Amino acid sequence: MRNVLLKIQYDGSAFHGFQVQKEDVTVQQTLQDALVTLFGQPVTVTGCSRTDSGVHALWYVAKVTFNGNIAVEKIPYALATVLPKQLSVIDAAECDEDFHPRYDVVSKTYIYRVYVGRFLNPFESGYSWHCKFPIDVDKMNKAAACFVGKHDFKGFMASGSSVTDTVRTVSDCSVERFGDILQISITADGFLYNMVRIIAGTLVEIGGGKIDENDLPCIIASGIREKAGITAPAHGLFLAKVDYGKDVFSKDER
Amino acid sequence: MRNVLLKIQYDGSAFHGFQVQKEDVTVQQTLQDALVTLFGQPVTVTGCSRTDSGVHALWYVAKVTFNGNIAVEKIPYALATVLPKQLSVIDAAECDEDFHPRYDVVSKTYIYRVYVGRFLNPFESGYSWHCKFPIDVDKMNKAAACFVGKHDFKGFMASGSSVTDTVRTVSDCSVERFGDILQISITADGFLYNMVRIIAGTLVEIGGGKIDENDLPCIIASGIREKAGITAPAHGLFLAKVDYGKDVFSKDER
Repeated sequence: MRNVLLKIQYDGSAFHGFQVQKEDVTVQQTLQDALVTLFGQPVTVTGCSRTDSGVHALWYVAKVTFNGNIAVEKIPYALATVLPKQLSVIDAAECDEDFHPRYDVVSKTYIYRVYVGRFLNPFESGYSWHCKFPIDVDKMNKAAACFVGKHDFKGFMASGSSVTDTVRTVSDCSVERFGDILQISITADGFLYNMVRIIAGTLVEIGGGKIDENDLPCIIASGIREKAGITAPAHGLFLAKVDYGKDVFSKDER
Repeated sequence: MRNVLLKIQYDGSAFHGFQVQKEDVTVQQTLQDALVTLFGQPVTVTGCSRTDSGVHALWYVAKVTFNGNIAVEKIPYALATVLPKQLSVIDAAECDEDFHPRYDVVSKTYIYRVYVGRFLNPFESGYSWHCKFPIDVDKMNKAAACFVGKHDFKGFMASGSSVTDTVRTVSDCSVERFGDILQISITADGFLYNMVRIIAGTLVEIGGGKIDENDLPCIIASGIREKAGITAPAHGLFLAKVDYGKDVFSKDER
């Protein structure tokens, strides 16, 4: 059996998340079906993250296990002939049998996009959260720095999640403005369920003056979900990078 | 009766062009229906251009004629409550009864976007033409300069068009690269049917080496459609600016 890592991009609007479900179209199912069409045999697909319905990916890593002699660099081209236009394989590389795309992650980076234009922008509406109230980016940035470090993020996890170890280390959290887009970037060794969307919602509420930025350290320390901000909508969220602490793909990519 | 100009943006993927058709969803029909819902009376909508099915607009101007006392600056907000997310009104201003959004145009600017990444990008696939062959942007730019000036663009008009005066003046035609996107900009006092898409197709074929850039002046002078390049697909084309030689909208926009 061969083990190959795929670097993929997808428009989350077209999928009900990554993981296979009974009824709905998911990334994993679409990828599996394409691989079966291509190789004429069952293929196992393991993802680096269970992204939610509607969440987008600029850099997602999936491991596929199959029999076949296709040259690894030809896999993205071959898959392009059978995949829908909302899903693209942009790199492929052989990997060890025991490499796990989720458990071997050293850090992941998410981007959350907020659109602050006065009116709806038809080209942004599927790829950002439209916030029409005045937002202070400096306040957001000062608050973002409070998330950096090793913290118990219990208050920034969707209620109902069964995870018990809620300590995560955030290595970067910052906000940049590009025209009418605010881009929140966050890198951590792992994320709790809805953690980025709750952090984004909290930062936007701080920027909008609904939550006082000076209260944030206490809000984090409290571990109480209700004290944090709202959960920002899924369609503003992008998985932007998956880091394994080493180059798992070829270096010659454009 | 009041006469109001609307500045609108729309994602062309959702519409069969601007102009009302019997069966299909068009921008004009969608706008008319929204205005009727809002004002409870028939409203006339006149557009600045008959954009094709699939073509996008960042800045389209439509004139609407109706009875009603709504403050002009409230119109975009009121329309936002009834329009679909693929269509947005971003400005509104009173205009004279005899102002015509199409005949009074001094110049229009179109942008044509070409994606040159190796693999399909799911976030670009609806908004650019994916060209996978090597493209020389310098060659494209040298060729683009040949379109500037007053020329008979008969060879750059879709065959079957009944227009007889095919002379147009192009004031700007240039190509810029932003990462994996090539952006062709073209400004003229008017455009023949499919003119921008044929110019874009020709420039891409010149950049790809299929047409010799030195032949372009002869191709233009020939007036023969078959000598020019292919018609680039509609989904890469954006109407980007409509200039009436004066400010028709408020100046305080963001």
